[in-house]
Amino acid sequence: MKYAQKALLGDQLAGARLIRLLEEGTPEGIEELRHIYPHTGNAYLLGITGPPGAGKSTLVDRIISEFRSRGMKVGVIAIDPSSPFSGGAILGDRIRMQKHSSDEGVFVRSMATRGHLGGLSKATFEGALVLDAMGYDVVLIETVGVGQDEVEIVDLAHTTAVVSLPGMGDDIQAMKAGILEIGDVFIVNKADKVGADDVVRQLMTMLEMRERPAGAWIAPVLKTVAAQSIGIVELVDAFLAHRDHMKATGALERRIAERQDHFFRELVKQKAYEKILAALEGTESHEKLLRELREKKTDPYTAAEKLLENFTVCA
Amino acid sequence: MKYAQKALLGDQLAGARLIRLLEEGTPEGIEELRHIYPHTGNAYLLGITGPPGAGKSTLVDRIISEFRSRGMKVGVIAIDPSSPFSGGAILGDRIRMQKHSSDEGVFVRSMATRGHLGGLSKATFEGALVLDAMGYDVVLIETVGVGQDEVEIVDLAHTTAVVSLPGMGDDIQAMKAGILEIGDVFIVNKADKVGADDVVRQLMTMLEMRERPAGAWIAPVLKTVAAQSIGIVELVDAFLAHRDHMKATGALERRIAERQDHFFRELVKQKAYEKILAALEGTESHEKLLRELREKKTDPYTAAEKLLENFTVCA
Repeated sequence: MKYAQKALLGDQLAGARLIRLLEEGTPEGIEELRHIYPHTGNAYLLGITGPPGAGKSTLVDRIISEFRSRGMKVGVIAIDPSSPFSGGAILGDRIRMQKHSSDEGVFVRSMATRGHLGGLSKATFEGALVLDAMGYDVVLIETVGVGQDEVEIVDLAHTTAVVSLPGMGDDIQAMKAGILEIGDVFIVNKADKVGADDVVRQLMTMLEMRERPAGAWIAPVLKTVAAQSIGIVELVDAFLAHRDHMKATGALERRIAERQDHFFRELVKQKAYEKILAALEGTESHEKLLRELREKKTDPYTAAEKLLENFTVCA
Repeated sequence: MKYAQKALLGDQLAGARLIRLLEEGTPEGIEELRHIYPHTGNAYLLGITGPPGAGKSTLVDRIISEFRSRGMKVGVIAIDPSSPFSGGAILGDRIRMQKHSSDEGVFVRSMATRGHLGGLSKATFEGALVLDAMGYDVVLIETVGVGQDEVEIVDLAHTTAVVSLPGMGDDIQAMKAGILEIGDVFIVNKADKVGADDVVRQLMTMLEMRERPAGAWIAPVLKTVAAQSIGIVELVDAFLAHRDHMKATGALERRIAERQDHFFRELVKQKAYEKILAALEGTESHEKLLRELREKKTDPYTAAEKLLENFTVCA
């Protein structure tokens, strides 16, 4: 227990080391996480996503400042597309930290996990638990991307904000149908550029066309010019209004429970696999199976079933 | 076995239905996949990725035409960011099909799987198996995205091409460090636009700075103007040169084996979990565990270990 106790007291260095341990997936990290787990569940999880070039970094920077001016502490998890491969995340941390580095109420971590098995999702979830337990009121998760990451953020965040910008061509058009479903708040950044009102109008039209149950949240479309700090106060108001709505309707509680269940299931799978492997790896029957698989004498489905025959559950 | 036999004879309707079955994760789909599995392993898997607005759809269209003019049949899996939510994938298929719809040597499928657990990756892998078994010489996998999807494509494809475009701002700059590691061929599309040579130069400088073992593939940076079919012949030459290099060095064989192992491991995990759940769900001890988890009387790691105690492997 090298880091958990210090992290719970808000020690940023300890928090950073703990998150690194969790990313590495070491047993030590998990021991530490057991210790902090009871202290989680208080933070507001805010996801911000959108395509490259939308100015998310500047926007996040301004949002942090606005939360700070309201007396809220902010932890940030930046999911950096360069991170899985190149250590770019660490550079990203440094750049992002500069502005708020003298502020103890802000803590920024970039995620550097190359995740096969929902690894990014797992690391993000665990990182958010740490920031939550450290006492940050807001945990802001930023991704650059329009693919799978975005979907996983939705599963994790209490509020998901989707950033668009004027004039991004056909791809953004194609994207819209998808992002409509995941956004709780829509942001048209760089709203001083030509075409901003067109994007706002398109988004609103598409949002209006959706079926919405009575009493459901009405996702607002807000214009910002992050570089000039325009529209940021209204944006943070909208985030908190969504949070309050989620709380009032019980949707927040449900979302948290679902995410926990999902995380638990993934852990069970991983551990079941480890147990099977620990028992079978190196045995002759297991080697034979792998060989047949490689030689296409069997298919992966049949082989997996065969493997599982060695395996009993006692209720 | 409704579709496998027909799909193996190249029937596109049967192939489409089979892929849909696999996306749904039904046992029927898996039965069919068992049947086609021995017929896989011949296709060249080409991944194309890059941010929104890079003109990937047009580029893919021209690449298909070039492969066709060389007498190669092309299957395409388009991973559509709108697809997880909105059925946009189906629309995407129609649009993309129009051009090549009278050509029996081209088959385009969009993936519409919202994948929690590497679900997208699983569906893409299985879709590629189907197209492979159907006899397509090239299976082209297209994603819009700069995040996790891209990483998963690398695991699957034999050659990964990364598309950039002139003047995309800071995000693309940040992205570069990451894409450098995954790209086998770099494409600067819309190369008639201002700034194209800058992007080429930046990419080449960064590529030259990397450490590269002796004999390793030297990733080329190629300019294209897809809308005018400029640079496409050279691009397809570069793809095939990379494939030949991978074959000659044994890297192709290793990559295929790794991917198969990974897929097999995932299947084992999934099936182990299903077996545990089938035995325990509804039992009192299991309900108690879930309740304690919800009430934070235990943490997910401890709970997963407890669950796994009920579980024996006989070698």
